[in-house]
Amino acid sequence: MRSSAPGPHAARPPITRQAPGAAPSRAAVRALFPALAESREVYLDSAATTQKPEPVVRAVTEYHASRTANADRGAYPWATGLGRRVAEIRARTARFIGADDTDEVVFTSGATAALNAVAMSWGLAELADGDQILYSPDGHSSNVYPWHHLRQLLARFGRRIELVPYRTNAFGEADTADILAKVTARTRLITTAHVHHVFGGRTTLEELRGLIDPAILLCFDCSQSGGHQPVDVAELGADFAIFAAHKMFGAPGTGILYCRRRVHDRLLPFLPGGNSGVRLTDAGLVATGMPDLLEGGTHNLPGILALGAALEVIDSFGVDAIAGHDRDLTIHLVERLRRVPGLRFLPGPAYAPCAVGYGIVSFTLTGISSADVGFVLSELGFLVRTGAHCTVPDGDADVRETDSVRVSTHIYTTFDEIDRFVRCVTTIAEEVS
Amino acid sequence: MRSSAPGPHAARPPITRQAPGAAPSRAAVRALFPALAESREVYLDSAATTQKPEPVVRAVTEYHASRTANADRGAYPWATGLGRRVAEIRARTARFIGADDTDEVVFTSGATAALNAVAMSWGLAELADGDQILYSPDGHSSNVYPWHHLRQLLARFGRRIELVPYRTNAFGEADTADILAKVTARTRLITTAHVHHVFGGRTTLEELRGLIDPAILLCFDCSQSGGHQPVDVAELGADFAIFAAHKMFGAPGTGILYCRRRVHDRLLPFLPGGNSGVRLTDAGLVATGMPDLLEGGTHNLPGILALGAALEVIDSFGVDAIAGHDRDLTIHLVERLRRVPGLRFLPGPAYAPCAVGYGIVSFTLTGISSADVGFVLSELGFLVRTGAHCTVPDGDADVRETDSVRVSTHIYTTFDEIDRFVRCVTTIAEEVS
Repeated sequence: MRSSAPGPHAARPPITRQAPGAAPSRAAVRALFPALAESREVYLDSAATTQKPEPVVRAVTEYHASRTANADRGAYPWATGLGRRVAEIRARTARFIGADDTDEVVFTSGATAALNAVAMSWGLAELADGDQILYSPDGHSSNVYPWHHLRQLLARFGRRIELVPYRTNAFGEADTADILAKVTARTRLITTAHVHHVFGGRTTLEELRGLIDPAILLCFDCSQSGGHQPVDVAELGADFAIFAAHKMFGAPGTGILYCRRRVHDRLLPFLPGGNSGVRLTDAGLVATGMPDLLEGGTHNLPGILALGAALEVIDSFGVDAIAGHDRDLTIHLVERLRRVPGLRFLPGPAYAPCAVGYGIVSFTLTGISSADVGFVLSELGFLVRTGAHCTVPDGDADVRETDSVRVSTHIYTTFDEIDRFVRCVTTIAEEVS
Repeated sequence: MRSSAPGPHAARPPITRQAPGAAPSRAAVRALFPALAESREVYLDSAATTQKPEPVVRAVTEYHASRTANADRGAYPWATGLGRRVAEIRARTARFIGADDTDEVVFTSGATAALNAVAMSWGLAELADGDQILYSPDGHSSNVYPWHHLRQLLARFGRRIELVPYRTNAFGEADTADILAKVTARTRLITTAHVHHVFGGRTTLEELRGLIDPAILLCFDCSQSGGHQPVDVAELGADFAIFAAHKMFGAPGTGILYCRRRVHDRLLPFLPGGNSGVRLTDAGLVATGMPDLLEGGTHNLPGILALGAALEVIDSFGVDAIAGHDRDLTIHLVERLRRVPGLRFLPGPAYAPCAVGYGIVSFTLTGISSADVGFVLSELGFLVRTGAHCTVPDGDADVRETDSVRVSTHIYTTFDEIDRFVRCVTTIAEEVS
């Protein structure tokens, strides 16, 4: 269902549209991101949050500065207009991720809340003694902690579920052979990152198709793929898919939770309040419909308006063009980093048998901590993430590093920036070797 | 602990400070709110969301347009600076609400999430068979649904708690005599609105002091009092207090949950993820500290920055001056509406034995639905809320109206606007009578 045609709200297209697949002009892209235009720093931390294009800045500013109201709470145009805009952006989001229907698109306060919503709305409702969830202990803690929290909550009430860890392979992808070996008749959910936030490997689980019970639910954390890669929830066979708006040019405080129709009547309310999809009866709260069942209270209106503007910008670039640029940058970066003395890649595209790349590369240097590398890089104006990157420190998987330097890119990153970065890393490596 | 002195971040004070207690100049106040400055409409829906002052607009815009980063996720200045700013705003928030310590201040995605956090973090952890929660079925659904959801979740696992409804009196306040009559040895929590979102009555529960077991927890929803009235959580004796930033000049998507120290070791994690206050051990997730235990994932950074700017603006006006203005407007409005034929007030200050008012008045007109009144008012440029105002339609309390016109004010509302509004309501009433 994804369309690259400009939507009805593209009244002010952010940049001139390119021929399909063609890279947008460097200058036009760069000029669209005010924080980059004003700074001399090299921003290589797009996996933490992306820079914000001017139409997003404008959408957020206009919400606060003009006709400010709550949405759908009053019958006057300031309020009803916002309600309509939220509905339009929900529809655009559905198209963007390939959802069949707008009622499959839930707005949450972020990707973490969305993953917890799956645990609290589906998990608490449906899991029975002995049921199993397959998960990656190497994943982002937002795709680890909610399942442990769920397990503990259920255990508190005498219900025992099992969290079954699976391995990550050298390419930074979920080891599907390991998953297949661990699937049992009690497996209810398999959860994975679509693109891993440290390793930069991509997991689609397509190797499992036809080999596992189709009743097993699939949950994809698309925080690092949304807006970077084409994501089609139908192609993925996803039952749940999670997106972080602030990692796709939007604002922090807004997430997207895709819930496939087949799970809708198996969900409990999530954080119910004003305008939730529930009704109070003598028997208690009764669901009245999705997506409101998982929404309550005032929406993060500027966040949703920012998401609308962000999707327009992504479509104006073309998500295939973004993916191509990220791939080319990643391959370029990996090739050059290979020559750096004492550099060791974490699992990821550096070990892949063919040239792939999704905009994320992590590594360590011999003889110097990653924190110190990050400090030197920061002093020289290169902004990267160092540390454990929100992975869970107490796991036991072999591939885990507790500390590394992560480089992450986006459409606004240039080859020149990558070259300057590699020269800087080379100097550091040579000095400590 | 509340201080009206300008904080360290008041580098650009939004308006000239007034003598304590003096009303700020009308023109200076009005000019600070761009959406009002540009429009001819009369905004009388501040209980749904407040207008945003220019420093809030600027804070939000600057976050997106300059040095955009995630907070505390990178070691470079763009990221560490944001982390420091979040800590400063948390400290300012603590002072603003009278909290003893910053670790009592949790940032949530809104008031609804904050009330649900109390239910999910405290309620699921601590409630046993037969325990009781006293609540108002006349309250906002965000202070009703979370408790029903909690009751149903516990019932699903064989644990039976009881929700005990108490009455609202004619002044729109919690009927403390009714609460006292319903308190038992099994009462664990009493929850109330500090200012009621439709009736506009204020509840402090001070009548219960010394009469109920101090172990009973008190939960105040301060969504309508925060930024309008002085709120001191210590004075209220609150264990939990909830605030909606967007109803105190801030942005939607940010709430404040005050959790008193004495409950800290009785809480489960809430929506855990990256940077949560938990650690994964062989025994599962273990709490490492507040407020992080109830926070996870990327903060709503623009929302928190907006809150910081909003608190500066409130302090520059002086919250006592705001409360005085709201009181005077409310008394003025009620006096004039009394003369309108066929107008019936909902419970609230109109029935109070002395002249009080908190910026919210609701009424109905004989012979015309409130929706129609709202439609006519909107056509004439008066923006009010009509309908059920997020109350729960299936309750059974006598004072409940399912449909009314609500007028709500703030520091930027003028007496002239109130007079014009009353003239318009009078015309409508005369035409239908």
